[in-house]
Amino acid sequence: MSHNLLVAQSGGPTAVINSSICGIVEEALQHERIRGIYGAVNGILGVLHEELVDLRLEDPSSIRNLMNTPSAALGSCRYKLSARDFDRLMEVFIAHDIGYFLYAGGNDSMDTAHKVANLAAERNHELRVMGVPKTVDNDLRITDHCPGYGSVSRFNAIATRDSCLDTEAIYTTDTVKIVETMGRDTGWITASTALAKDTDENGPHLIYLPERPFILEEFLNEVKEVHDRFGRVVICVCEGLRDESGAFLKASTEGIDTDKFGHVQLGGVGDYLVNVISGKLKLKARYDKPGTIQRVSMQCASQIDIEEAYRVGQVALSSAVEGECDKMVTLIRNQNDPYHSETGLVELEEVALKTKKVPDEFINNDSNFVTKAFLEYVRPLIGGALPHYARLRKRTVNRKLQPYT
Amino acid sequence: MSHNLLVAQSGGPTAVINSSICGIVEEALQHERIRGIYGAVNGILGVLHEELVDLRLEDPSSIRNLMNTPSAALGSCRYKLSARDFDRLMEVFIAHDIGYFLYAGGNDSMDTAHKVANLAAERNHELRVMGVPKTVDNDLRITDHCPGYGSVSRFNAIATRDSCLDTEAIYTTDTVKIVETMGRDTGWITASTALAKDTDENGPHLIYLPERPFILEEFLNEVKEVHDRFGRVVICVCEGLRDESGAFLKASTEGIDTDKFGHVQLGGVGDYLVNVISGKLKLKARYDKPGTIQRVSMQCASQIDIEEAYRVGQVALSSAVEGECDKMVTLIRNQNDPYHSETGLVELEEVALKTKKVPDEFINNDSNFVTKAFLEYVRPLIGGALPHYARLRKRTVNRKLQPYT
Repeated sequence: MSHNLLVAQSGGPTAVINSSICGIVEEALQHERIRGIYGAVNGILGVLHEELVDLRLEDPSSIRNLMNTPSAALGSCRYKLSARDFDRLMEVFIAHDIGYFLYAGGNDSMDTAHKVANLAAERNHELRVMGVPKTVDNDLRITDHCPGYGSVSRFNAIATRDSCLDTEAIYTTDTVKIVETMGRDTGWITASTALAKDTDENGPHLIYLPERPFILEEFLNEVKEVHDRFGRVVICVCEGLRDESGAFLKASTEGIDTDKFGHVQLGGVGDYLVNVISGKLKLKARYDKPGTIQRVSMQCASQIDIEEAYRVGQVALSSAVEGECDKMVTLIRNQNDPYHSETGLVELEEVALKTKKVPDEFINNDSNFVTKAFLEYVRPLIGGALPHYARLRKRTVNRKLQPYT
Repeated sequence: MSHNLLVAQSGGPTAVINSSICGIVEEALQHERIRGIYGAVNGILGVLHEELVDLRLEDPSSIRNLMNTPSAALGSCRYKLSARDFDRLMEVFIAHDIGYFLYAGGNDSMDTAHKVANLAAERNHELRVMGVPKTVDNDLRITDHCPGYGSVSRFNAIATRDSCLDTEAIYTTDTVKIVETMGRDTGWITASTALAKDTDENGPHLIYLPERPFILEEFLNEVKEVHDRFGRVVICVCEGLRDESGAFLKASTEGIDTDKFGHVQLGGVGDYLVNVISGKLKLKARYDKPGTIQRVSMQCASQIDIEEAYRVGQVALSSAVEGECDKMVTLIRNQNDPYHSETGLVELEEVALKTKKVPDEFINNDSNFVTKAFLEYVRPLIGGALPHYARLRKRTVNRKLQPYT
């Protein structure tokens, strides 16, 4: 018997979540068991408030162009469901004959999806719930990586290389550059800036992840050491850095706010470190904080990420039609060079609310850079080499005068 | 008689200053009167310290690839010359038989170039000095616009549109977004974010330029009004905003520093406004500050900007060979649609140290957005339309339940 499909997105937008929607819708169009293809406006809030849109009425070329469109075309939200909300969800699912519910998001969303699946089973409502992985944070367990991460990594690799070239050109004036990246509790995003580095002398020189406590004195020593060697320093830091006491680094605490899941809204690490470096080391520093731009930059999206995002959507749908439920699609890397991945399935319970931190083998002993193993892990995900830039040889002309002092 | 050519870059890097170097070098290779083609490492500092490189020894393909390489391949600096330094410059010019000196930079650099030209004339050293316009700030007088501006505008148009889409997707959680752009004393860069706007509802909703005093109370009213209408607000601000007393907006003053020309090093407007908005309006705000990334993003460079940067370099060289001196190349727009420009020349004295602010006719009456006239001015400079993104129709499915409260 045929039922309707409902798709919703949750959490922070990415460059490729719309590719997952495209994969889901294009696959759904192939299955007779799928009657209506509905999207929820602004994620689970759209389900609660019965704000559903009919994706069969979209132009197929618009659906296809979702592959080139960043952010979240259906809208998203961060919202923690109450017990009462779950009852309402069931009402909506029953009223609209929803037989397939596909939820794209991170570990909070997988928890929501898992609870929905349980509740439907308890109430004998036939509902196949599937999770579609999506998070630039790359912190979902079991899957090799998360759609969205390859693109934010490509953005940060390119932007950091640009920022390093900028510092290299103007270091006689601005010697210290901080690049502040996203990453709530994990350093996956920050770590990807290492892809910008080609030689010892070129940045980024130092990378600090929230997996290690930030120790100000060591930091200042490390910055000074690099500055003494090269006359400049580019430092990449995660917005979620914490000191030894577990407190966030912050120039002021006024901006700290918590979202609906109780996560602290971060920001200010760049400003804080600029102040510390100019105050303690008397060096002129400035910071770049691409903020949300990094997660939705289509210009720097990874082609592999776009394709994998499509594929996890497609597989979530076909798996649901085949009878799977209460599972999330995973990506399994079966070859690194040339890169090749396939998809798998995992119980939602295994990924719900759990966080995968950057493992020890990806962080160097000094806790101020990543390892070669990390670079091997991340490189294929950004979908090809960085654009080729010119480097001049700079053969010097013989001096004819005394040094100028 | 043949002489050597010396090229130097100054001030902040851009996506296209290397295109100007490419234009200069490729043109110089065509003239028998140019013997050596030298570049100064780190701008005028490289001249003072006799750090010159021989650009004839570069691979022609590297010179060509400068067109695709951002930042400043020869290195740059910000350095205010003393009277003694000018004497040293002359010594270096004479020692290396420099007959042509081409200096790429903004209004500070044009002043330096002008002084060098005067001094050489006073001392009867035959030196043809030409200025090559370069500044993302777009604040040089007389020229229609400055190479570097089209590309930073394209970056900001794309990044702001992405950031607006991000806010549109997640506004049920994060309702206010600040985008902080560069722009020391002028709002040209900030104004370009308006290119991201397609409808009333979509951002950016408010744009504040340093050409108008920032009045906090009016700002808060305007933010609240947009928020009441659309449930979200995207606000673009210049790092150089000042209040009615002329003081910079700043969360803290610790980070304020002055560079060698006495310009104040800015930053912190985004952080300040996030705090003000969360404190006074109780709205959750966050900010994006792409920082130096905006001025060196090759991924978002404008093809027209790249070509014009090449052309001003080429024309500076050929004009010098033809006998011109103490002048800067300008861009003259002779047609807007389709866009067409030609080059002209202006006395360096006319542009040295002077600043072109955003004129009144480009700022709306409420001082919180740009006008149609500005959009007509800036649109051709970004070298083509923004990438096409999908917009879903979102035809709603009929409700079957009572509203959820």
